Amino acid sequence: MIIVMKMGASKEQIEAVVARIRANGCQPHLSQGVERTIIGVVGDERQFNPDHFQMMEGVEKTMRVVRPFKLASREFHPETTQVRFNGTIVGGDKITMIAGPCAVESLEQTREIALALKAEGVSVLRGGAFKPRTSPYSFQGLGREGLEILAQVREETGMAIVTEVMDPKDVEMVSEHADVLQIGARNMQNYALLHAVGRLGRPVLLKRGMMSTIEELLMSAEYVLSHGNNNVMVCERGIRTFETYTRNTLDINAVPAIKQLSHLPVLVDPSHGTGRWELVKPIAKAAIAAGADGLIIEVHPQPELALSDGAQSLKPDKFRDLMRELRPLAAALGRSI
Amino acid sequence: MIIVMKMGASKEQIEAVVARIRANGCQPHLSQGVERTIIGVVGDERQFNPDHFQMMEGVEKTMRVVRPFKLASREFHPETTQVRFNGTIVGGDKITMIAGPCAVESLEQTREIALALKAEGVSVLRGGAFKPRTSPYSFQGLGREGLEILAQVREETGMAIVTEVMDPKDVEMVSEHADVLQIGARNMQNYALLHAVGRLGRPVLLKRGMMSTIEELLMSAEYVLSHGNNNVMVCERGIRTFETYTRNTLDINAVPAIKQLSHLPVLVDPSHGTGRWELVKPIAKAAIAAGADGLIIEVHPQPELALSDGAQSLKPDKFRDLMRELRPLAAALGRSI
Amino acid sequence: MIIVMKMGASKEQIEAVVARIRANGCQPHLSQGVERTIIGVVGDERQFNPDHFQMMEGVEKTMRVVRPFKLASREFHPETTQVRFNGTIVGGDKITMIAGPCAVESLEQTREIALALKAEGVSVLRGGAFKPRTSPYSFQGLGREGLEILAQVREETGMAIVTEVMDPKDVEMVSEHADVLQIGARNMQNYALLHAVGRLGRPVLLKRGMMSTIEELLMSAEYVLSHGNNNVMVCERGIRTFETYTRNTLDINAVPAIKQLSHLPVLVDPSHGTGRWELVKPIAKAAIAAGADGLIIEVHPQPELALSDGAQSLKPDKFRDLMRELRPLAAALGRSI
Amino acid sequence: MIIVMKMGASKEQIEAVVARIRANGCQPHLSQGVERTIIGVVGDERQFNPDHFQMMEGVEKTMRVVRPFKLASREFHPETTQVRFNGTIVGGDKITMIAGPCAVESLEQTREIALALKAEGVSVLRGGAFKPRTSPYSFQGLGREGLEILAQVREETGMAIVTEVMDPKDVEMVSEHADVLQIGARNMQNYALLHAVGRLGRPVLLKRGMMSTIEELLMSAEYVLSHGNNNVMVCERGIRTFETYTRNTLDINAVPAIKQLSHLPVLVDPSHGTGRWELVKPIAKAAIAAGADGLIIEVHPQPELALSDGAQSLKPDKFRDLMRELRPLAAALGRSI
Repeated sequence: MIIVMKMGASKEQIEAVVARIRANGCQPHLSQGVERTIIGVVGDERQFNPDHFQMMEGVEKTMRVVRPFKLASREFHPETTQVRFNGTIVGGDKITMIAGPCAVESLEQTREIALALKAEGVSVLRGGAFKPRTSPYSFQGLGREGLEILAQVREETGMAIVTEVMDPKDVEMVSEHADVLQIGARNMQNYALLHAVGRLGRPVLLKRGMMSTIEELLMSAEYVLSHGNNNVMVCERGIRTFETYTRNTLDINAVPAIKQLSHLPVLVDPSHGTGRWELVKPIAKAAIAAGADGLIIEVHPQPELALSDGAQSLKPDKFRDLMRELRPLAAALGRSI
Repeated sequence: MIIVMKMGASKEQIEAVVARIRANGCQPHLSQGVERTIIGVVGDERQFNPDHFQMMEGVEKTMRVVRPFKLASREFHPETTQVRFNGTIVGGDKITMIAGPCAVESLEQTREIALALKAEGVSVLRGGAFKPRTSPYSFQGLGREGLEILAQVREETGMAIVTEVMDPKDVEMVSEHADVLQIGARNMQNYALLHAVGRLGRPVLLKRGMMSTIEELLMSAEYVLSHGNNNVMVCERGIRTFETYTRNTLDINAVPAIKQLSHLPVLVDPSHGTGRWELVKPIAKAAIAAGADGLIIEVHPQPELALSDGAQSLKPDKFRDLMRELRPLAAALGRSI
Repeated sequence: MIIVMKMGASKEQIEAVVARIRANGCQPHLSQGVERTIIGVVGDERQFNPDHFQMMEGVEKTMRVVRPFKLASREFHPETTQVRFNGTIVGGDKITMIAGPCAVESLEQTREIALALKAEGVSVLRGGAFKPRTSPYSFQGLGREGLEILAQVREETGMAIVTEVMDPKDVEMVSEHADVLQIGARNMQNYALLHAVGRLGRPVLLKRGMMSTIEELLMSAEYVLSHGNNNVMVCERGIRTFETYTRNTLDINAVPAIKQLSHLPVLVDPSHGTGRWELVKPIAKAAIAAGADGLIIEVHPQPELALSDGAQSLKPDKFRDLMRELRPLAAALGRSI
Repeated sequence: MIIVMKMGASKEQIEAVVARIRANGCQPHLSQGVERTIIGVVGDERQFNPDHFQMMEGVEKTMRVVRPFKLASREFHPETTQVRFNGTIVGGDKITMIAGPCAVESLEQTREIALALKAEGVSVLRGGAFKPRTSPYSFQGLGREGLEILAQVREETGMAIVTEVMDPKDVEMVSEHADVLQIGARNMQNYALLHAVGRLGRPVLLKRGMMSTIEELLMSAEYVLSHGNNNVMVCERGIRTFETYTRNTLDINAVPAIKQLSHLPVLVDPSHGTGRWELVKPIAKAAIAAGADGLIIEVHPQPELALSDGAQSLKPDKFRDLMRELRPLAAALGRSI
């Protein structure tokens, strides 16, 4: 941590800062500039609250030097993590396709989509049993019944299941029916939930909050990792900006940025990231080209009848087109799909 | 809802939309324009998912006409709601001051602050027992022990207690120790939690998420109200923007905007809204001038030793200054404090 | 400037950075941390481009220590600047009211508004002759004819005139008809224009760009100040955020923040800052309470017939109400209006 | 345009709106809903200012139905425009590479970079003679001397030249030395400049403002097009968001979105869009995969010595790597480079 003193800070003010640094078991390192004094803190700054110093008299500002995450950091774990479940490896050469309906609506609907996806080579099915919805008047998901449908389709098709969990008390129940627990964007900083899935040890798919920085996403991953659960995948799904033509602004920069900062596999959700089905294909291709380890795509046989998020769902024939275009692209990038 | 057809949409495409509107028990209303056809939906549009139509062939876009909240809406409840607890009325002529430390650290600290605040006429104490923190390595609050400290101070001082709840399973326990349950900004769309506090019926202080619109804030209030719990106060605490000088950008427009859209009382938190103690006083004054029904202010006897958010806490003497300046301001606005 | 080296940066990489600092006539100051080396630069960092170091091998990041503006800075000019023109002083105890129509439409319209404002004690008239409009099909202002109308009304009423200039070649012509040259939000970083008004020496009203930070606003002021033109007033007029209920989000934090960082007077424009006339009064009051030195308010006798920005204009009777409420507020704050 | 009346709007208020619509030569179309009346305007809504109606009594809100641009719209011009200059075609099957230093620093530097780029098959050189800089103390470009250097290198290499123009008075001079006039992000809404380049008729490269919507970008293109100058290319170069790890957030969604909305060619600038050279390669690939017609890349032989924006410049060998990876990618997408 660097502490910048105000112009004209007194000797006593500087000494007070120095004393506090020493009291924390660290070493101060003074640098007398032309306009002001700068004090470096030598020691583990992650234990410090910069606010402690910000409030001291004569202090102008404090600046952190190191990134606040450690378990999620590539500096400390140079090897890319591979998350494995049900025969799938996320984070290797093969790009993982995760697809399915936004919400589980019925056994028939879910089975129909699953079979169409399986025919395209998709081995991971997504579908929501618990749906976070802005309005209390919207369809909230089938709950436990939805989980049972997913489990049934898993048994019939052999596909792995990814589904969202919203309440810490449901974590165990969901884990009985699903291979991967998804933490949705609105719950990225729901710490009670992060602790609960961390303790469980199951693979976690952590979506970036629409108001969250890359660093905050990795700090939320750190919550899960801090329980010894290393099976974490993070997912870029669009952030909120001033642009209104698209529902969200997919932050494509985040893909290579996270790959540099962290060893965790990175997925991209072009369906939520754009909110418009016509944009899903070009953005899916862009995500792969930027280095994503996998994609999450909403597919629905009749998007105009979907109980949620129809506008961003592909029909099965459009999904087939997408797969057909992704394969040569992946090959040109030295990967498979 | 308005459905705008594409230029050159076919007769069949228009008829399909019309048929679907009728199938939902509503009336279509066609308007043949120069460039395109527009179809109005007459009936209760809140039941419709605009996505249903967005995906239909020939449809360019859909636009909602009414606001999606009803219970929170001033149109349906012209009278301003007053939330009452422990002798305090929020939403009347008197401006409500809620103050205290970010985190409960010990009985001594909490009692000292409470007594200092009570001496200034403050009757509602805030303090966190459960703290949502970006880093798993930061102080997470004293938990149940913090709640007991708050309850003890309530008994000693007669002050009402506001404290945050983060996990649905803690709602009952927290309600045994506190008068008002706070939903923090990061949990504004934690629907499991909103349902839990809605069912309980206790006063709720709902903070706006840092990347949530005014409409989404009122939709989250709608979740609580939909359980028949009308004791909801909403709180503007700063949104996230590109500006980095302040931690957040306090959206002062939200104060009169919410007062127009909704009957719920509106509080403002200048401590989080700015993230800098030197800005708390001018912004607190601005909030009152804009029509806020109350303020939430962080106060700590030694902010430089605070276990969280010290940089935005006022010392008791600065809080006294603030109160001294707010009183004539409130009087000039025809209110008291 | 602080240069943070990567974990494991080599001795040669560190020496290269040190050599470059010395080559620039500054002193390096090394701090050997547990994880990495930090190098402080002692000397005038404003001459450095942080990018120079960012690209060097072994460098992780660079951090500036001082604010990049100097002439606009309160550290170097503790006294608040007062800008004077035509008998008006901006930046003193008296709050300056600047009001008028968005666009000058005719002599009759402008005179009518001016007389109504003068009757309320307003001594500065605003009105646009050149209008920056998003669409080439919208009314672009009367141009030179508008300037002549303003000059005519100035002569008749004795009011000072504020009007926008958009093209460097018009700066002289506009200055012949107006007392204060306004740089609009879209031109805040139009450096050709900033140089032109800087060279002229006339009072400048510089509006914050809707995409610009407080620091960037002060850097644009620095452009004007660097020509020796000290008559600069800055104006907060709302920034662009994700919120769509209001046209812009007025950044109320900017008012006390700029007062702390800079000696320049600060104005607030609640008409553009909200985009809705019903919000102008509460936000005008908030601005005054936050410490603004003046307000810019759009007033139009028939906003529903205004050629631009009608939705945010007050009718004269509503402006009279506003003045009636602002006077006791100013008095409670120890100022007059 | 749709006009939504307030709940309980009176018959007289509705009639006043209807009369005003008729007075504008359009037809009103009433739709009596359960809660409120909605009035459609049949006729050319581009001539209307929604504010005219917004201010009328009884009106709740107004909503535009059609996009405000027409000349830039694909609806009215289904064929993709191809911009041609000096043997280059932008908007065809071949992806156009534009590369060069941020600023022209000397003849030697510019010639060296140009030759290195030409060897990689690049036929368009970019380089700034006039540099818009946040600080008046930063290098502002060589001005006319820079233009002469560019013209000299054009003569020697046969490459086409793209360079920025900042002041309307320089438009002619710049056009004598360059093939394409660039309007920078900060000047996207500098209407005096847009008119000046529109009148000239030369190819224009219009960069998206960092806080401008896609629609506003196309409206600025409309300014140029409205002068009969159809040679307009638009460029996504990153928008400003809350994320601070990257300098800007490249809005990849904008690429396919603009391709759908407009017939103009779309370029992407990954150097400014990320602000970090390590991210340029993956984002360049993503841009191509998303459908961009070309890329603008900053290249500098010694980025650590560059007079501006070094941190985002590639060294020539890294640029060669980039080209090597882009070629198979373009082929997999059915394009060449």
